Amino acid sequence: MADRLIYLPLGGAGEIGMNAYVYGYGAPGKERLILVDLGVTFGDMDTSPGIDLIMPDIGWLERNRNRLEAIFITHGHEDHLGAVGHLYARLGVPVYARKFTGALCRLKLEEQGHQADIVRIAGPRPEATQLGPFSVQFVPVSHSIPESSALIIDTPAGRIVHTGDFKLDGTPVVGDPFDPVAWHEIAGEAGGVKVLTCDSTNIFSTHPGRSEALLANPILEWVVAQKNMVVATTFASNIARLATLAQAAIASGRKVCLLGRAMRRMVTVGLETGVLTDFPDTIGPDEAANLPRDKVMLIVTGSQGERRAASAQLSRGRYLGLSLKEGDSFLFSSKTIPGNEKSVGRIMNALSEMGVDVHDESDGLFHVSGHANRPDIEALHDLLKPRIVIPMHGEHLHLREHMLLARARGSASEIAVNGAMLDLTADRPKIVDHVETGRLYLDGTVLIGAMDGIVRDRIRMALNGHALVSVIVDEDDNVLPDAWVELMGLPGRTRGGDDLARHIEGELAEFLEGADDRTVRDDGRMDEAIRKITRQVAMEEIGKKPEVTVIISRLMAD
Amino acid sequence: MADRLIYLPLGGAGEIGMNAYVYGYGAPGKERLILVDLGVTFGDMDTSPGIDLIMPDIGWLERNRNRLEAIFITHGHEDHLGAVGHLYARLGVPVYARKFTGALCRLKLEEQGHQADIVRIAGPRPEATQLGPFSVQFVPVSHSIPESSALIIDTPAGRIVHTGDFKLDGTPVVGDPFDPVAWHEIAGEAGGVKVLTCDSTNIFSTHPGRSEALLANPILEWVVAQKNMVVATTFASNIARLATLAQAAIASGRKVCLLGRAMRRMVTVGLETGVLTDFPDTIGPDEAANLPRDKVMLIVTGSQGERRAASAQLSRGRYLGLSLKEGDSFLFSSKTIPGNEKSVGRIMNALSEMGVDVHDESDGLFHVSGHANRPDIEALHDLLKPRIVIPMHGEHLHLREHMLLARARGSASEIAVNGAMLDLTADRPKIVDHVETGRLYLDGTVLIGAMDGIVRDRIRMALNGHALVSVIVDEDDNVLPDAWVELMGLPGRTRGGDDLARHIEGELAEFLEGADDRTVRDDGRMDEAIRKITRQVAMEEIGKKPEVTVIISRLMAD
Repeated sequence: MADRLIYLPLGGAGEIGMNAYVYGYGAPGKERLILVDLGVTFGDMDTSPGIDLIMPDIGWLERNRNRLEAIFITHGHEDHLGAVGHLYARLGVPVYARKFTGALCRLKLEEQGHQADIVRIAGPRPEATQLGPFSVQFVPVSHSIPESSALIIDTPAGRIVHTGDFKLDGTPVVGDPFDPVAWHEIAGEAGGVKVLTCDSTNIFSTHPGRSEALLANPILEWVVAQKNMVVATTFASNIARLATLAQAAIASGRKVCLLGRAMRRMVTVGLETGVLTDFPDTIGPDEAANLPRDKVMLIVTGSQGERRAASAQLSRGRYLGLSLKEGDSFLFSSKTIPGNEKSVGRIMNALSEMGVDVHDESDGLFHVSGHANRPDIEALHDLLKPRIVIPMHGEHLHLREHMLLARARGSASEIAVNGAMLDLTADRPKIVDHVETGRLYLDGTVLIGAMDGIVRDRIRMALNGHALVSVIVDEDDNVLPDAWVELMGLPGRTRGGDDLARHIEGELAEFLEGADDRTVRDDGRMDEAIRKITRQVAMEEIGKKPEVTVIISRLMAD
Repeated sequence: MADRLIYLPLGGAGEIGMNAYVYGYGAPGKERLILVDLGVTFGDMDTSPGIDLIMPDIGWLERNRNRLEAIFITHGHEDHLGAVGHLYARLGVPVYARKFTGALCRLKLEEQGHQADIVRIAGPRPEATQLGPFSVQFVPVSHSIPESSALIIDTPAGRIVHTGDFKLDGTPVVGDPFDPVAWHEIAGEAGGVKVLTCDSTNIFSTHPGRSEALLANPILEWVVAQKNMVVATTFASNIARLATLAQAAIASGRKVCLLGRAMRRMVTVGLETGVLTDFPDTIGPDEAANLPRDKVMLIVTGSQGERRAASAQLSRGRYLGLSLKEGDSFLFSSKTIPGNEKSVGRIMNALSEMGVDVHDESDGLFHVSGHANRPDIEALHDLLKPRIVIPMHGEHLHLREHMLLARARGSASEIAVNGAMLDLTADRPKIVDHVETGRLYLDGTVLIGAMDGIVRDRIRMALNGHALVSVIVDEDDNVLPDAWVELMGLPGRTRGGDDLARHIEGELAEFLEGADDRTVRDDGRMDEAIRKITRQVAMEEIGKKPEVTVIISRLMAD
């Protein structure tokens, strides 16, 4: 069969986060493969309580690892590189990234006990990495972290541009400005752009994107107007924003104190790799505590309301000798990610209770997005004139809107959600396969499958409570009627005021006394009957059916 | 001691939801009291898994029920009347409301087995209810439910205006338009307005509020442009919106089908009480399924992503014989309440996967808020010229912003959060007491305290999993070394691939075999040691410490 070009998202297509996209070229079923990005997403109480990190299920790729050439990481955000350390051992191929991103990758790999030299540093275009049928170039783009890159992936079937996360920013504060001439060149080489795989996150934002540089004046003016302690939070990886905040501090006579491990680490890596050239000297929390309040700006982690980050700690009281008070000012130079509204709100309200003035991005002055808005996406389509547009990185709503936009503008376009394999060889993309995919959960130190039932049981215990019943059967197969019931996460008292556990025990005793031999000898029957009675009694007495675990202990004759 | 006028919020001050405000007049500690509103808020997985409804802890009011004259309900939203049925028995005083609100109150009371005649229907101002030192008038205001009312509460210490939830709407589609002349009159009577207790929800919205009537044209134009089935969702209680949606359907040649119990109930109550005069005839789901798709509009419940509501059901497939498909259109004529973004997003994405075009309020055409924005709040301050402004109904951020606004405009103002008692007798409000308050959770059919530990245990089980250990001690105080371990919500295998439960059992056997008599005889010591070992082993093997319940069964000699 003829060689073909395929695309297979394993994460990020149908969700925002957890990016992982496979490209392949070769004979069907024998394509050589590369993986672009290997990110994580974060758990939540609604769907994944107790889960620290969520990663794409890369089972398919693992089974085909002998065909995999390498992993390319477009930029250093967790949703693009966060799973590299955890999943590297399953793939065992080199990781390519630019310098700053590569340094972050190495930290991730080392945390999991892997060698730093797995990561190979690639320079920006025109440098190209040749691997099997692929030639891959990193093209600098702007985003909310330094050194973000689009990838040009040249294959025998034509040129693919994979945007990664990007925006069009002529004045990005840190990193290279958007360069339409370079993109024009890219569009003109190699027979033009066959496939544009394109970020869809902001497809519903209808105004043109705003530049990072627009924030300098409003932030400076705001800082100058504050009379006491100033605190600002943003994503630690948004180094351009850190630079803008720090410059505003210095220009208004304040010293800068960085709080939060991620904040200090990002500035260090930024300086070491040269993406950040002139960050002001910072002071420690001790010195900050001893300066007059109007001479300090704290730049802190926790813009998303993370419970253990510096913002949350400050909102709860003293942190590293520092505390906020009436008349201080707190700036969220960030956007709240959907799902984090309540945690961010809790911190803002706690600050408000201290008398702190809280400011956020709602009036548009203190934050800009790192993603291309609809007009910017259209501009990129226009520049590159791709024959095929594959909407990437977005919930289904975003992908669909992007597909409709691309079709309306004359490109072929198709949605491939996670697990859907597209054949891109011809002029129209075609879904040719569905690969089993899903999510892996990092639970403590163990990777579990999202569908293993573990998390489902947690959710059920959280919603319904958990009743434990212990029953003993003696050496002669006589069941002791004194079942023991323990409740966890259930009201202790019934509506009538009785002790619920004792009440259930009473009902169980009645059943156990009358249970026939066939039932008593059979764990399955006993379990089912006890569970049913326990749930029924609870339903009558407190109006809900708990999860029930029955332990039947059978005593053995000596 | 001289008589005094007091204000004591028990819910709603420091949060959006669960409104309950006490006013009192009389000798300190002997004031006669009225309660304004008695609402609920809703639980979430993060803080209250398994909890159906959350209500204010009215313990203080219960202890002082002999001083309570009545409950006044400003309007029919759940966060203002939802707790009436559940808490009525603890207070036992009449409930006053206008006709439509009263009808909803009666339904709530009847659901809990109370008599409908507890509710006394009050007419709008100038009708006044005299109770002890209070004279209370209902003043029609606009909001997102018919017949909302502000209360004028006249006391010997002066006039209070309690706004309830309100907006200024000259063309509210349903109900009375905003009447500045009437408000001017109110400000001029009774020595002027001493206290304005005022809705703070939208204090951060800086543009003037928009009228409900502005939606008619955009919605009609949108419906006309759709080629297939149209579905619209909004809060069922937003009867003006239902009317607007239905009128757009009729005008574009579609029949209206209401889906969802709340939707049908609200229209029925609206018609019965006369707040709704001309709602078009509706059709049932069977008839809707048999009509051409471009002749139907479904108006459905579930605008907040509620799992069991009609929107969610339709997004999951067939519902009452109806299903959506490629080319259908779905309108969220609603705002997503913070915290519900993910559930709403899930529904929107599921619809998108079906090929349904999803529209929401993001371009400002299809929804208006029911609350007064900052300029409207300022307009009301100007009209009423209150000597004191008490910001009400809002998170602390909102209350503080409202307080700063009021002070800047020359009124005295103070924040009273739930449980803080304000003395309003003099010209400056003063906090004179803090009353113990909190939240009651409706769990199944039982009311539990938020701090009872039940919900805390559920959250811990959800985050950490639950390990159960059963140990048997025989008649001679010998512990049987075969502890039995069951895991719920925990990985079955360790990192090394062993069975986790068996592994813990092995470690426990080692401990039990060596346990001395003093330990074995003491349930507390046994429990502590077993718990500690279980948690340690789990930490080593899977990197997390589960909740542990130990059941020690002691066999008795016959």
